Formats: sequence, C-alpha cells, structure tokens
Amino acid sequence: QGGRSKRTAEGSELWWCLASPYMNNSKRSNIIISSCFRSLRRIHHQSDDAKRLLRPLIDQLLQYYEDNDVMVQREHASPKDIRNSLLKNSKDVKSALEELCKYSVRTSSPLFLNQLYSGADPISIAGEFALAVTNTNAHTFEVSPAFSVIEQMVIENIGKKFGFDLVEGLTTPGGSVSNLYAMHLARYVADPDVKTRGAVHGPRLIALVSEDAHYSYAKAARVLGIGDNNLIKIPTRIDSGQMDTDILYSKLKEFHTNNTKVFFIGSTAGTTVRGSFDNLETIASISSNYNVWHHVDAAWGGAAIWSENKDTRALLRGVKNADSLAWNAHKLINVALPCAFFLTKRIGALEETNATHAPYLFQPEKQFREADFGDRTIMCGRKADSFKFWLYHIHYGDQGIAQRVDHCLRLARLAADYVANHSLLELVFPPSFANVCFRPKLPHLTADQLHQLPPLIKQHMHSKGDAMIGFQTHHATSVGNFFRLVITHGGSESLLTETQLTSMLDRIAQLALSLSSSGTTKKRTKGT
Amino acid sequence: QGGRSKRTAEGSELWWCLASPYMNNSKRSNIIISSCFRSLRRIHHQSDDAKRLLRPLIDQLLQYYEDNDVMVQREHASPKDIRNSLLKNSKDVKSALEELCKYSVRTSSPLFLNQLYSGADPISIAGEFALAVTNTNAHTFEVSPAFSVIEQMVIENIGKKFGFDLVEGLTTPGGSVSNLYAMHLARYVADPDVKTRGAVHGPRLIALVSEDAHYSYAKAARVLGIGDNNLIKIPTRIDSGQMDTDILYSKLKEFHTNNTKVFFIGSTAGTTVRGSFDNLETIASISSNYNVWHHVDAAWGGAAIWSENKDTRALLRGVKNADSLAWNAHKLINVALPCAFFLTKRIGALEETNATHAPYLFQPEKQFREADFGDRTIMCGRKADSFKFWLYHIHYGDQGIAQRVDHCLRLARLAADYVANHSLLELVFPPSFANVCFRPKLPHLTADQLHQLPPLIKQHMHSKGDAMIGFQTHHATSVGNFFRLVITHGGSESLLTETQLTSMLDRIAQLALSLSSSGTTKKRTKGT
Repeated sequence: QGGRSKRTAEGSELWWCLASPYMNNSKRSNIIISSCFRSLRRIHHQSDDAKRLLRPLIDQLLQYYEDNDVMVQREHASPKDIRNSLLKNSKDVKSALEELCKYSVRTSSPLFLNQLYSGADPISIAGEFALAVTNTNAHTFEVSPAFSVIEQMVIENIGKKFGFDLVEGLTTPGGSVSNLYAMHLARYVADPDVKTRGAVHGPRLIALVSEDAHYSYAKAARVLGIGDNNLIKIPTRIDSGQMDTDILYSKLKEFHTNNTKVFFIGSTAGTTVRGSFDNLETIASISSNYNVWHHVDAAWGGAAIWSENKDTRALLRGVKNADSLAWNAHKLINVALPCAFFLTKRIGALEETNATHAPYLFQPEKQFREADFGDRTIMCGRKADSFKFWLYHIHYGDQGIAQRVDHCLRLARLAADYVANHSLLELVFPPSFANVCFRPKLPHLTADQLHQLPPLIKQHMHSKGDAMIGFQTHHATSVGNFFRLVITHGGSESLLTETQLTSMLDRIAQLALSLSSSGTTKKRTKGT
Repeated sequence: QGGRSKRTAEGSELWWCLASPYMNNSKRSNIIISSCFRSLRRIHHQSDDAKRLLRPLIDQLLQYYEDNDVMVQREHASPKDIRNSLLKNSKDVKSALEELCKYSVRTSSPLFLNQLYSGADPISIAGEFALAVTNTNAHTFEVSPAFSVIEQMVIENIGKKFGFDLVEGLTTPGGSVSNLYAMHLARYVADPDVKTRGAVHGPRLIALVSEDAHYSYAKAARVLGIGDNNLIKIPTRIDSGQMDTDILYSKLKEFHTNNTKVFFIGSTAGTTVRGSFDNLETIASISSNYNVWHHVDAAWGGAAIWSENKDTRALLRGVKNADSLAWNAHKLINVALPCAFFLTKRIGALEETNATHAPYLFQPEKQFREADFGDRTIMCGRKADSFKFWLYHIHYGDQGIAQRVDHCLRLARLAADYVANHSLLELVFPPSFANVCFRPKLPHLTADQLHQLPPLIKQHMHSKGDAMIGFQTHHATSVGNFFRLVITHGGSESLLTETQLTSMLDRIAQLALSLSSSGTTKKRTKGT
C-alpha cells in the first residue's frame, strides 16, 4: 500500500476512501484503482487543454460574427472541393473553424434574402450559449428547473398573445415537427383507439390543407400513416393565394355525405412562397361546424400578431379560434435557430396521445412531478429552445418585436413598389407579408428564356458574393421561374438598408439584360 | 426633396437610389421611404446596443462554465417560487442569465449522475457557438456548404466505425427521433403503398422490441399509427437484461404461420436502466432469415465501438449487420446536446419515404442539387449538430474517444465493486456498461421501507447540493425503487474522481441508515 500513498495529488482523498468504515476489509483489494488513476490523469490533462482553448475559440467566432461583411459568400467551391479542403486544412479546432467560416454562407449579411430566416440576433445567441454551458434537457423539472418553468411561461405568453383562452404546448425542433404534432393530436382526438389498435383497422381519415400549404403537412401525413391520398389539397385563389373556402366547405360537405371522416384542417398563416394568409376566421367557423380539428401553421406569418399596424394584425383574425398553432421565432424575428413552438387549446391532448410514463424518468414519488413536460412529447431529451425567445423578449419587449416586424413589412412594401415601378422588373404576385415575388420584364425574350433567367442571375450574383434570393416555379402562375425575395432582417445584426435593397434590384435588372443579350439563355436552351 | 438630403448618414446612398436609371420618374414619389428611415434608425440603435452586450454576456456564461463547482444545485425552489423569482428579478438580460444559472442544475458537476448525459465538452461548446453565429440550416447545400459536406463526412465515418458497408444518414434532434425514422423507413419498405394509400387499408404490421427497450419505440409506434397493440415486447432475460432471442424466434415463427407481417425488430445496445446489450449477432441473423428490418438503438451504448478493450467492443458484435442504427454523441462522450445520428444501409430509403420535392427549396436547376439532404428528412429546417461531433473528433481523435469511453467503464466497474463489497449497499443487477444499479442493504427494514429509501435519500442529497442519481423500479426485480448510477464524465469538464465516487456511495449508505432509524420511512407509510 506504500506505492499508493505516493500518488500525492489525490493522496489524502484516497486515504479517506480506503479508510471508509463501510468497506469489507478482506475484499478491498479487489478494487482496481490504479488503472482508473492512469486514465483519469490522461483525460484530465486533455480536458484542461480543451478548456483553455474555449475562450480563444469563442473569440475567433465572435470576430467572424462581429465582422459586418456584406458579401454573402466569399469562397465558392463544389461539395468535393470543400471536402478536400476540410480534410487537408482542418488540422486542429482553430483551423477547422476557419475552414467552416470560409465555406459558410453569411446568413447575417443584409443581402441574404434566400430563406425565411437570416442571421441570428445577438441576445438569442447569448441564449444559445447559455443552453450549451448548462447542457441539459427540458424533459424533467429536476434536471432543468429554470428551463422547465421558462418553457411554461413562454408557452403561456405566446398563447395569450394569439388570444388562446387555454393553452398547453411545447418547444419543438421546427415548424415541420409542430405540424406533425397537430395532425397526430387531431387523429387521436378523432379516433382515440388508434393509440392502441393502430390505424389499420380504424376509419379512413382525411386531412385538408391548401395547395399552397407547407410540404411538412405531406411529410407528416406519411409519417402518421395517413397517406398522400388522404391529404386533400384545397385549391387556393389565384388572386390572393388563400385557401378557397367555398371549395373547402363543399369538400367537407361531400365527405360528410359519404360518411368519410375529415379529422384535420390545416390552414396557413403566411405561405412559403407568396406569404398569403388563409381566411382563418371563416375556416375556424367551418371546422367548428363539422367538428374538425383546425390547426394554423403560422410558422412564418405568426409574427404579425406583434405588429402595431392593425391591418397586419388582421391577417391573423380568427387565429384565437384554432385548436392548435405552430409559430417559429427563428424566422421573421431572428431568434437563433431553432426556436419553434407548438400550442394547443386542447388541454391534456399532448399527454393523452404521447405519454408512456417511463418509470426511470417520471417517477410518481418525485417532488414537483407536475412540472415535468417530457411525457407530452414524441421525443425524450429536448433542448429548451424556448429560453432563447424568453431572453430575447426580456431585451426587446413586445414593442421591440413589433418594431422589427413592421420594419420588415415596410421594407418588403418598398421593394414591391420599387419592382412595380421598375422598367425592367415586374411583380409576379401582389406582395403579401414580407414576401415579394418578381421577375425580369424583358418582352423580347421567350417564355423559356425568362424561365431560365432567375437561376442564371442567382448563380451569377452568388458567385460574386452578391445577394442570395430564392427562385422557384409556382402552380398559380405560368411564368416559370421567378424570384421570391423575403425580408427577415428586422432584428438581425446587419440591417438591410433601402438603398442596398433597391440597388440590388437594379443589379438583378442589369444582369437580366446582359445575360439575355449575351445569349447565355439561348445557348443553354440548345445545350440541354 | 430638400428634406431628404438632410438625412446625412444614408444621404449619398439615397441619392444613388433615387438616381436609379431604371425607375419610372412619375411613380418614384410613391415609395414611402421616410417611414423606413425612421424604423431603420430605431432598430439599428437597438441592434448596436444588443451587439455590444454579446461579449459581456458570453463572458458571464463562460465564468459560470469555468467555475468548477462540485455542488449540483445551490438554490432549491418549487416551480412556483422559481417563476416568481424569474418574474421579479429578470429585469434585463444579464440578471435573467443570473437567475438561469441560479436555478439550474449543474450537469457538469462530477456528482451529476442522474441521466445518460452530463456537462458538455468545451470543444463541442465551441461547435455549438459556431452553429449559432453562422445560423443556418442543413437542408440545402447552397445555404450550408460546409455543414452539408461535414454532415455527409460524419455519417460516413460513423458508418465505417460501426462496420456498415454502405451508409446514408441524418443528424436528428435526438435518439427518439432516430428510432422513429427507423420504424418509419421499415414500414415503408414492408408496405411501400402506405405512402400514398395510408395505413388504413394496408396489412397489419407488427414491430418487435425487448421489454427493456427505450420508450421512444412506443411513442414512435403511436405516431406512425402502428399502435401499442402491434408493438410486441419480447421478454428480457432476468440475468442479463438481454432480449430473449428464443422467444423472439418463436414469436416470429408464430406470426409467420399466422400470415401476420412483422416489419421491424428493434434491438437495444445499452438499455436505459441496466445498460444491457441485446445479442445483435443472433438477432441480425433471425431478422435476416425472416426478411425483417433490424434496427439497433445504440443511442446509449454505441460509444462502446470506440473502446480499446475488445470485450467492450464485443458488446456490439453483429451491429454491422443491422439495417439501421441510432447513436447519440451527446450521451457517454459529452458532445453538447443534442448530437444524435440515424444511419441506415438501405441507400435511398430516406429519400423514397420522405421526399416531397418542394420546388422552392430543391429546384432541379440548382447547382450541386445532389448535395442537398433536406428531402431525406421528415423536417424542413434542421440544425447541423453533426458539426459538433466533427470538431470534437478533430480534437480528440478516435483514440481520445476510446480513452473517454474506457475511463467511464472503469469508473463504473469501480463503483460496482465498491457497492458489492460494501456492508450497507448491494447491487440490484450485475453491472453492465456504465450503469450500476444498487440499493441500500438494511436487513432490518421491510420491503416497503427499502422501496421508500431511494427517493428520500435522493431528495435529501439533492437539497444539499450533493449528488443526483436516478432511481426507479424495474420489472425484472421485486426490490422496488433502486438507484441507477450512470458514469458519463469521461469527457466532460469536471471529472469525477474515484474518491468522490466512493465517498458519495458512503454518504448514501450513511443516509440510508440515518433516515431509516429516524423513522422517516415509517412515518411516510402512515401518511400516504
């Protein structure tokens, strides 16, 4: 035992351990302490080393974040070249982070207008960092006392904001999962036996959404075993992009007459491309008449509820009558990704549908068992993303959020006006919310050439580090590819100025002219 | 127009905008620029303010992280008291973060032994911070060039490590979602029509898992519409906690004879409570004979593949024959939460099952479209959590991971030996992996009193900031509540020393003695 006492660092502690009055003397020697000592020293050394690295690494990343670079992307490379560069140059963590920054898109550039999100707000970044250093799960109160209480408070506050008289909810990993929760709950309420029996011998169940609804409804229908054929897409109105409620009504009547159960109506507040808001008031009343669960996917448009402009708030009129709601704080108002919420008025439905009462987590004897929300979910561990919104809300308040929302919408309006008055650009749809759909206006080009322009313009601009703006086709128009500009820079670091916006639109017009006159589009037509 | 030129800050840019050659003069006045200027200035001011706050806030959180406090929790309060404190004291972001830290459990304390995770490794925290400052989604290559390539590389590397000859996969929000993916894909492969037709008029489909499998299988079965009744739980062997493969085989034969399709066998590598590993080799061979999808939930035990000890690696023998696998890097090896992976050998199955080809994201004309993995998922936006593991792996390498895994297992072995030789403690199950199940050994107490002790001891220790260790009952034993100690501190900041571990076990023994002799357990029996 003399050898052991030489391990001075843990010496006195070790003595305490060996002197434990509870140990059976004859068996003490069985304990293989020496290999533990060796591995502990080795790993302790590595951990100290890693810990010393953390501050410089954080500083390196803060410098990247603080650099208000307008260029969306500096280095362009194919997936293969990026892989080779990463393999060659990522020798240590510092150089790996350099590589990451080099081959990343700067979403916080004012010219990143490609998605329904952009750079993250600094307060929410602090929130994300708090989640990392505390590193815990929102499944039980005992391991996340503050986070569990905060999630509950945030859900209540958002519910109140949307006019829900009762509310229960969850932070989810994204809007798609929120929509999945909605359909899952609605099916359970329509057919409670599905939980034990399964869908196979149950009734055929139909879900109705608009044809402009987000594709996550389709993914959810597949996951749930509803099937594509039972997710009926109600046409939208060409003029507004809203679900045609006359058709919705007649479809419901038709299914009712045929004794086929419609269990779910998923409406959309802010469609992905057009930014359209379904008529929630009418849909709520129809769904209530037929006793169908009404879910509002307000992942994108929900932020309108904060607006100080009553016309903007009116886009969400009727939302308070919905059975459930999805809203993403990581979209328009720039809370760090992800920060998504699912809310429902059907108290208890989440628990009834999902709870399995795992004895190792949700012990009945546990103190404050009632504050555990983990069994409401389809997951086990779950990050407390609600915290980021809570912190953000403390800093900016409802008024600050309102200013951000209204600023985005004003800029979108300005972009739309600028396009409408432009000699070389035209709107494809009337602008709605923060979405502006437009394309080059060049009457001498063929429809096919005009269709080819947006991808070419995008690639050209992107390769120079200029703006990124999404393009796509859309069933409601025959124009082919067009741009969808989305303004989400209301709360993010590098704010988009009006002149940046309008001069960027001018550059698109100029590129449309030069790319079409250089014959690039024609050549491509022949080539493919 | 004179008034406009006075706005000096953006003056020259504004001139450029107004002088745009593409603008129709007569309509220019329509653009409502002035209100944009006002809102921009206001928000710019707030953003500058927020940006200035970021570094001090990060510093505040780093101080919390760097403080090697051993106390698991300093402030204890009920959910209601925490709410009141948060409402009263969270006046600004700084004080809100103070409140958070005050009412959080310190998962990085060496005495946090409550879950299958603990504090986050510093390198992975830097990775999390990189995700926040770059703030993007892993759905398309164009918005996440580096992250998309890295996700692919990580999936390939993990696949290779587990011996998969082919591999495709995804970063998921957690192990439960990975298990959901597995069952979802398996159903589609067994019944491809389910995607369009739905489950209702399809065949009855049966999933088999062990009775010790994670509860997420049950949640997945409900989400998918399989139903509790069609998720058959195969008994585990009392001695080992492994799925009884004889019963598995006879069940499969029985269903086969009855013409009932078994589509899924979910085995477990590292059960939640006992840490048992199913016999993957035998199960793979059985499932292959019956042409059933075999998924391995190695969320907890997968880290064993890195071990330098061949007996530990042998726990996973046969894993390479599985059709799919779940592994969480946020568990044993302490990558910041969440960092979960789903892997499958069935190339194309993810895309076939889930793709909806949303035209606004997955445009066929887009460059490097083949590097977009978003349509493989059941989600839309998705955080690139794989990056944290990539960075961690660059720093520690396979060897560093191996050291961490083996260190955890050595410590668990030491704890088990200490308990086995203790006069006042006893093992409830033979130790397996990093799980040690034990309870007080006090022959003079009744079974009910012994059942009451673990929650009482836990509450007592927890209230003093001492260790947190989970307790639960388990179907394989009649002892009632017992402790499950889990060692996951192999890579985390504050390493658990042997003496901390053994002296903590002594404190549990001492508490068992004093609480039972003080009559606390008896009183509680009368009271409830």
